[in-house]
Amino acid sequence: MPTVGVCLAGCGFLDGAEIFESVATLYNLEKAGADIVAMAPDIDQAHVVNHVTGDVMEGESRNVLVEAARIVRGDIKDIADVSAEDIDALIFPGGYGVAKNLSTYAFERFNCQVNDEVDRLVRETIAANKPLGVICIAPAMLAKVLEGLGVNTQVTIGNDPQTAQDIEDMGTTHVTCSVTKHITDKENKIVSTPAYMLANKIGETWVGIEGLVNEVLALIDA
Amino acid sequence: MPTVGVCLAGCGFLDGAEIFESVATLYNLEKAGADIVAMAPDIDQAHVVNHVTGDVMEGESRNVLVEAARIVRGDIKDIADVSAEDIDALIFPGGYGVAKNLSTYAFERFNCQVNDEVDRLVRETIAANKPLGVICIAPAMLAKVLEGLGVNTQVTIGNDPQTAQDIEDMGTTHVTCSVTKHITDKENKIVSTPAYMLANKIGETWVGIEGLVNEVLALIDA
Repeated sequence: MPTVGVCLAGCGFLDGAEIFESVATLYNLEKAGADIVAMAPDIDQAHVVNHVTGDVMEGESRNVLVEAARIVRGDIKDIADVSAEDIDALIFPGGYGVAKNLSTYAFERFNCQVNDEVDRLVRETIAANKPLGVICIAPAMLAKVLEGLGVNTQVTIGNDPQTAQDIEDMGTTHVTCSVTKHITDKENKIVSTPAYMLANKIGETWVGIEGLVNEVLALIDA
Repeated sequence: MPTVGVCLAGCGFLDGAEIFESVATLYNLEKAGADIVAMAPDIDQAHVVNHVTGDVMEGESRNVLVEAARIVRGDIKDIADVSAEDIDALIFPGGYGVAKNLSTYAFERFNCQVNDEVDRLVRETIAANKPLGVICIAPAMLAKVLEGLGVNTQVTIGNDPQTAQDIEDMGTTHVTCSVTKHITDKENKIVSTPAYMLANKIGETWVGIEGLVNEVLALIDA
């Protein structure tokens, strides 16, 4: 029974984790028989967005760990308390929170910074040659961690030209991919799928993420 | 292509909609080919709960419609703008929000009150003989609406004795049911399933809700 870490960036696609992507990841991991360690950083969100209007809610403040806990019914750890020794693989669902809370990609693109604990756990996971799954916009965050590490991998965020160019500018190869498919780097054990970078339906996201989850699990003992 | 209303009670099981139940409802409706009208009341939550500690966050205030919008990526209506003429069926996922925001059941049990717009839309749906699906704790809210309407139906919330007794005290028959099954009143077109009143796994919730969704859809033209 493998144990898979799932790092959530909050709760809600405009300022946190994309909820359908998060649930698809958790559902498919459970279905495949994996144990799950959900986690998030114990930090303030970059901002809070009203999901009806799309406007930033000025003066509002929320904590990424506390909001992410909503998705997993409170069964969540501070990422600072998780090491790569605790898990057999690590998956990042998407949502703007990955680009606003786990990193500053939404604000600074290829000049972004990655949260210290996220950066540490990704580096530990790669050093241990354990699989990494990155969904939606998460490959852009991963590319920043890999920049300078000398890991030559390929990922997909679907087909958005600007994001693909940013990933290339950070030294990672971008490959175009449709929403129900995923891209695998078997050597480095890195799997990515576009999800809501391209999806118009919940079911499209589901198929792409089910494929990613099963590929990540298959790579654990590869 | 039927159009099904899904009424959400917020975002997060302790003060809003249970997220797995909400996504299971939306996913299975989409899979079955239904169009979805997501909705919520434009009212303040009864309170905001920290989903890590379980404690009420004093001084915090959130709006049910605005938070529910997180689950459906902003594609949501104020329930006040929805009538039974706009939908072919209506489903309520669970979560404490149904008993705290859509009704006061969590605080006043069988003496509870139901939000005016929720009460109106449920009554319209029943008067039009259109199917109603109630998940998790939602049957307790429904029992309050039905009290005095003279509709003699049966529902399930699983097997919790206190909640079952409250439902009986409001004049509705409670039937014990396992997590992957559902209870159907074909005459009144009312379907219920226990979900997280009993569930220990996401997959259990999924199977129960898939059954409810398909039964609700089958009852539309019954």
